[in-house]
Amino acid sequence: MPVTISDVARAAGVSKGAVSYALNGQAGVSEDTRRRILSTAAALGWTPSLRARSLSSSKAYALGLVVARNPRLLGTDPFFPSFIAGIETTLADSGYSLVLTVATQTGSEEASYRRLAHEGRVDGVILSDMRTDDSRIALLLELGLAAVTLNRPDTPSPFPAVCMDDTEGISQAVQHLVDLGHTRIAHVGGTQHYIHGLSRRNAWANTLKLNGLETDLFIEADFGATEGVAATADLLARDNAPTAIVYANDIMATAGQAYAQQQGLRIPADLSVTGYDNTEYAQYLNPALTSIGSDPLLWGSSAAQVLLNQLDGTHDGADVVLPAPRLITRGSTAAPHNRSSSGSK
Amino acid sequence: MPVTISDVARAAGVSKGAVSYALNGQAGVSEDTRRRILSTAAALGWTPSLRARSLSSSKAYALGLVVARNPRLLGTDPFFPSFIAGIETTLADSGYSLVLTVATQTGSEEASYRRLAHEGRVDGVILSDMRTDDSRIALLLELGLAAVTLNRPDTPSPFPAVCMDDTEGISQAVQHLVDLGHTRIAHVGGTQHYIHGLSRRNAWANTLKLNGLETDLFIEADFGATEGVAATADLLARDNAPTAIVYANDIMATAGQAYAQQQGLRIPADLSVTGYDNTEYAQYLNPALTSIGSDPLLWGSSAAQVLLNQLDGTHDGADVVLPAPRLITRGSTAAPHNRSSSGSK
Repeated sequence: MPVTISDVARAAGVSKGAVSYALNGQAGVSEDTRRRILSTAAALGWTPSLRARSLSSSKAYALGLVVARNPRLLGTDPFFPSFIAGIETTLADSGYSLVLTVATQTGSEEASYRRLAHEGRVDGVILSDMRTDDSRIALLLELGLAAVTLNRPDTPSPFPAVCMDDTEGISQAVQHLVDLGHTRIAHVGGTQHYIHGLSRRNAWANTLKLNGLETDLFIEADFGATEGVAATADLLARDNAPTAIVYANDIMATAGQAYAQQQGLRIPADLSVTGYDNTEYAQYLNPALTSIGSDPLLWGSSAAQVLLNQLDGTHDGADVVLPAPRLITRGSTAAPHNRSSSGSK
Repeated sequence: MPVTISDVARAAGVSKGAVSYALNGQAGVSEDTRRRILSTAAALGWTPSLRARSLSSSKAYALGLVVARNPRLLGTDPFFPSFIAGIETTLADSGYSLVLTVATQTGSEEASYRRLAHEGRVDGVILSDMRTDDSRIALLLELGLAAVTLNRPDTPSPFPAVCMDDTEGISQAVQHLVDLGHTRIAHVGGTQHYIHGLSRRNAWANTLKLNGLETDLFIEADFGATEGVAATADLLARDNAPTAIVYANDIMATAGQAYAQQQGLRIPADLSVTGYDNTEYAQYLNPALTSIGSDPLLWGSSAAQVLLNQLDGTHDGADVVLPAPRLITRGSTAAPHNRSSSGSK
């Protein structure tokens, strides 16, 4: 049982407020009382790491986001800029800051959370890129940090989740391509370690199976342009090359589309292409990119708001479910030009 | 005389490191030692509020960036994602975080800097979007915050600047268009309140004047797609419509190019277009966008490094001059199709 400031207050014969003042070094208690409270806290085994939970006044006025990816992806994966912009939309002019940390080395991510907690740098954190068996849930419980997760993790979590389904849009994209007459529909997926990478792949595979189609045209990539091109080259070189590719994000789709065009393929006549996240530039590509209108900005602003509400006690603990992103059809998808080669209809 | 952790260490017979661990609730000391250290700290009158100052560290292990723009632009202006990624490239796995604050309301920006300084949340700040007569220089001097500026401001500043000339690339773009035979070359500039918005316009105008051409085709926009399209529509509707447009960033150029195509203009035959910042997607547009290869990622990583060096005393105070961005010629620029209509040659 961790020692709380209520325990310290009772043992020292003072109010919880006085304990709070003393432990935060604020005015409001005499020097003698402050020393007595510190001694009592030490005797009971109270630890500073519990301050975040126990003190009402110990606010850092900051939310934390620890990103465990190559920092360059913050600039090139179109999700993060909009997501961070969304967080800042909620925090702007509120006195709150976002503490952004990038951790790529083994152990560095956990150390980052510990530092944020122990040094009181943030009041809570936003967990993105949820993973299967995500160890961060237990870590945050140990640290006593408030948190909100993007989608509900596959492990039990006491933290509210802000959910945006990413399977419906992918299913719509695959069905759209099937309805156009495609039978060889590939998926260039994101990192499968992430739940969102895996769930998009599953949505792609399930929709193909529902239509009686094969699910062999899959390649995992890292959400970046270079791997998106490599995956596209790999798929197009196969005997059973796809006539359509569903990408897990827009930059891979954009780079893949450009690569196919360089190879002399017409988009969409020879190859249909879909993206994900509907980045601002997707509409300006030639042909404009069919994409899935997720709203990272809304996701970021909602996550920050739920965390702020949680911190001030006005969140009811329930998950917040945002509208499921839907398919936005543009010029990069059409019926396959040569249906005989696809073996369908 | 405030009690320091050296005092506590001496009295408790342990190392300063052990005191630091105990007071931060970190692993590295036994439970008994931790309690003894806490008791000693209490007996000596050590106060938590002095921790920040008295720890050898005394450091916040964070750099600050206050952005005074619509938070949505963090996601859509291609500069910031790469710039922030660059900062994180330097900070990743270093224990340092970036404290990112957006301030849009009057007074909110100054309040943000004051809060960062007074609450010891950052060790220094990176000043972007330098303005004419930038009041932040005096404010930071008053607050005693370390800082680095992007380019040298037009007011006296004691802070090192990390400089990336943005006039040479624009001059090259204009000269490239003149050499192709264009005589009506417009500029859709960024916010003129910013030094970089103004200097790009001046570079455009000066290069036109050197070639004996008019500088009347100028519109100020906000670096966003919507205003980029509006500016393009305005220019193309004029009697002396341009045959080439030099935009102050890639997203305005991209949106402007798409708008012109929708109006039935061929790029580059009817209209040549250039961007700025050479965003990753610029090469994938159709036609690919001629742009200026500034390197916001390098700028961010260099600025963070200069600030860290300044904080640990290893920076000599001199400005750091990064290579001037150069023109990258792609398919969006060519000789004007109908030279007679341009009235030249």
